[in-house]
Amino acid sequence: MGKYFEELQQKYKVKLEKQIVNDVLNDDLLGESMKYSLKAKAKRIRPLLMIAVMLDFNKEITNDVYKVATALEWIHTYSLIHDDLPAMDDDALRRGVPTNHKVYGEATAILTGDALLTDAFYLLNSTNLKAKIKCELTLKMASAAGSIGMIQGQMLDIKAENQILPIEKVQNIHKLKTGALIEYAVYAGSLLADVTVKEQDALLNYAKHLGLAFQIRDDILDVIGNTKELGKEVGRDEELEKSTYPKVYGINKSIELLSGEIEKAINSIEEINLPMNYLKDLVKILEVKK
Amino acid sequence: MGKYFEELQQKYKVKLEKQIVNDVLNDDLLGESMKYSLKAKAKRIRPLLMIAVMLDFNKEITNDVYKVATALEWIHTYSLIHDDLPAMDDDALRRGVPTNHKVYGEATAILTGDALLTDAFYLLNSTNLKAKIKCELTLKMASAAGSIGMIQGQMLDIKAENQILPIEKVQNIHKLKTGALIEYAVYAGSLLADVTVKEQDALLNYAKHLGLAFQIRDDILDVIGNTKELGKEVGRDEELEKSTYPKVYGINKSIELLSGEIEKAINSIEEINLPMNYLKDLVKILEVKK
Repeated sequence: MGKYFEELQQKYKVKLEKQIVNDVLNDDLLGESMKYSLKAKAKRIRPLLMIAVMLDFNKEITNDVYKVATALEWIHTYSLIHDDLPAMDDDALRRGVPTNHKVYGEATAILTGDALLTDAFYLLNSTNLKAKIKCELTLKMASAAGSIGMIQGQMLDIKAENQILPIEKVQNIHKLKTGALIEYAVYAGSLLADVTVKEQDALLNYAKHLGLAFQIRDDILDVIGNTKELGKEVGRDEELEKSTYPKVYGINKSIELLSGEIEKAINSIEEINLPMNYLKDLVKILEVKK
Repeated sequence: MGKYFEELQQKYKVKLEKQIVNDVLNDDLLGESMKYSLKAKAKRIRPLLMIAVMLDFNKEITNDVYKVATALEWIHTYSLIHDDLPAMDDDALRRGVPTNHKVYGEATAILTGDALLTDAFYLLNSTNLKAKIKCELTLKMASAAGSIGMIQGQMLDIKAENQILPIEKVQNIHKLKTGALIEYAVYAGSLLADVTVKEQDALLNYAKHLGLAFQIRDDILDVIGNTKELGKEVGRDEELEKSTYPKVYGINKSIELLSGEIEKAINSIEEINLPMNYLKDLVKILEVKK
């Protein structure tokens, strides 16, 4: 783990995790359920990516930046709660603790997801950022998370169970299901850091490769990882007969492809005239050793 | 039915209903499911309220206004889809047709609701309105629909099943579950019509009474209405042992209370120096005869 990633963990992640829970608006049972899922141990890759972009461009991480990052993590968390429901992937364990519906019941879990999603838009628009910036972020966050982004990915993923898909279709599902929100994270950081168009292109390229790397890694760990370390049940892809990288390419080739994507991500930002240490460190943690 | 309400129905509702379906972003199965629930016959009270406010202030109903109204109807429709799920109220019929999960299955119904909710924020922010207006509308829409608005109302409603509540608690549930989005409809119209603070106060007062009238009527019709006319199963409140106006006050007294709220709504806007024909006609359709 590089020293920049360590700084992200020690300094920024700690403050972020406080904010993620403290910003919850509801102080009733609904809020308790929201906090339950938000508090669970997690990597916080998406909000940290956003913060890493800002740090690499020497920008201050203001309270408003934390709020934009929090909104993003709320959306990600809602998607996990709904994805884990019995009618969806029917998972019992997430982030090392029982899934939301196992603790609060299905009805509350559905509403908890709805609340995190809706409140994310509230939080983002309650910041003191310029109205134009807020509109742009809202538009991009909604399109990344909505029916032509993440949710379409979820739909295709569910429909793809119990069938073998060609790798292009698997990639398309990943691009939508995981990639869209990861790209939004980098986009949001780039907008708040006020980068040039060329720099933004490089950053979005980085995000594309990181998104792919992220999903390949997830697929690999579902085969070779263990439940305790990952905080969720392993072997679920196999059980649900999902099309994954290891299934199509085998484990060794998948690990090679993962390394390739990490390298491409790093190469994408080499052209930016700054060290870009935070983003480089961040993508490197996705490495899986053979 | 007054002639202004008839004009709302004949002219504006027809255009609105086209937009509601045409603006759907997804052209895959997810989009089909979104359109299925949007197409079903409905009163469209919320978007028409917004349009009525604009018409009463002699404002043009531009394409952007239709989009803001559409976003609102999408949010309302998502809430119905999730509310009808087996884990929630478990309803089989809605707006005269089988509920979304009966046709597309639970997983797709959950995602369809999520998509309508998320895309509503996209649509609103994709308009050419001023950024400041869009932020203000987004903030209010999210707070009306979120964890301190409609979703909190849903939570309390579910938790209140199988128990007798005092009428203040029933009113509070209604205020959140139905009232919040109705008030947003009027708020949005008032913001787009650029009314004075005093006019806005009067309009929001109108909305408060209309929201209450709306819910009392709903409770009454669940007892004395019929399934064909309402497009949803009647007698469900009784089955779910919900606390309702007829249960607390009896039918006759409930009908009187309803008339009282309609009168108060109309009185609220008398102080505005304009005829306010559209809003007056609109609230009158909620009347139930003894």
